[in-house]
Amino acid sequence: MAPQYKLTYFDFPGIAETCRYLFSYGGIEFEDVRIKRENWAQLKDKTPFGVLPTLEHNGKVVGQSLAINRYLAKKVKLAGDNEWENLEVDATADTLNDIRLKIIPVFMEQDDAKKKALLETVKKDTFGYYLPRLEAQVQKNKGHLALGRLTWADFYFATLSPVFDLLTGEDVLASYPNLKGVREKVNALPAIKKWLESRPKSGH
Amino acid sequence: MAPQYKLTYFDFPGIAETCRYLFSYGGIEFEDVRIKRENWAQLKDKTPFGVLPTLEHNGKVVGQSLAINRYLAKKVKLAGDNEWENLEVDATADTLNDIRLKIIPVFMEQDDAKKKALLETVKKDTFGYYLPRLEAQVQKNKGHLALGRLTWADFYFATLSPVFDLLTGEDVLASYPNLKGVREKVNALPAIKKWLESRPKSGH
Repeated sequence: MAPQYKLTYFDFPGIAETCRYLFSYGGIEFEDVRIKRENWAQLKDKTPFGVLPTLEHNGKVVGQSLAINRYLAKKVKLAGDNEWENLEVDATADTLNDIRLKIIPVFMEQDDAKKKALLETVKKDTFGYYLPRLEAQVQKNKGHLALGRLTWADFYFATLSPVFDLLTGEDVLASYPNLKGVREKVNALPAIKKWLESRPKSGH
Repeated sequence: MAPQYKLTYFDFPGIAETCRYLFSYGGIEFEDVRIKRENWAQLKDKTPFGVLPTLEHNGKVVGQSLAINRYLAKKVKLAGDNEWENLEVDATADTLNDIRLKIIPVFMEQDDAKKKALLETVKKDTFGYYLPRLEAQVQKNKGHLALGRLTWADFYFATLSPVFDLLTGEDVLASYPNLKGVREKVNALPAIKKWLESRPKSGH
């Protein structure tokens, strides 16, 4: 039987990787469609609002990675057990997304000097602000970002944080052992380990 | 009995207004704490990640307006009836939030000439891109943004879209009767009408 889910994104981890982790973790087959940059222009207008990833299921297509993550997390039991718990996980995921939004301009900047200046600001004001607070949050949550147990917020962190290293050329989590532990724990899950070994080789 | 929920934000509608609408719609009492700009610096460090609004309930405090909206929407039955429906509503809310993120730089820009140029880009590339697509979505959804019925995505649109007019000095929805209808329908709900009449007078 053909997979019931089709995930469409570019050929790198990016913001689709949490979705791919969740599919893998839950043992849910999915069609992992990876489009080439040069084909994006013609596909863009066929997506709901011109952004990827999109998820197709039962003939319907939706966008927005965080919404898709949340949907998949419920399916694979990595969401909260009640609505307040879901709120705590969602708020943490949105905080991680705030970090992501703050580092995008560094990737986008073409001018070397400006890029370097932006990067310094990100290291100081973004990593320097968020990471100690998230580190403390993990300490309070038994090695996880929320609810004292594995949730999709941990998955999001595991797929987002390698971008920090890519951006800086440094081991950004070196001084945050608890946060590093979150990523390592997620990546050591048997289903995720298998996914990491079998996923297409590609950059970020 | 004191209200069980405390919502803290600045003294204007902003991204807390959807929360306030949801409380009002559901007849849920809440403490509507509005802090002054000049007191923000000293409060900032006491919030989870330096941003407002925050929601306090049973001694716990969380941030992130979209996460809070979703939580409240479930309480007042303005979310989906199943997880796919929630995904559709969430994706729509995230799309509205994408619009919001794209217009923030116009508010932030201090230089008049640059502000004017940014505003023209927003009118053309943001409003010009999203609004026709959202208009079509409302046409397909019986006068609503999602699920063919009232959801918290409609509430978010009703509180976000006045900012479009504020930004441009124009009636931005004039050529989008269906979208305008969404806002009007929400604001005509008896509980919302009452809230709009009784809420503190303040700018955006």
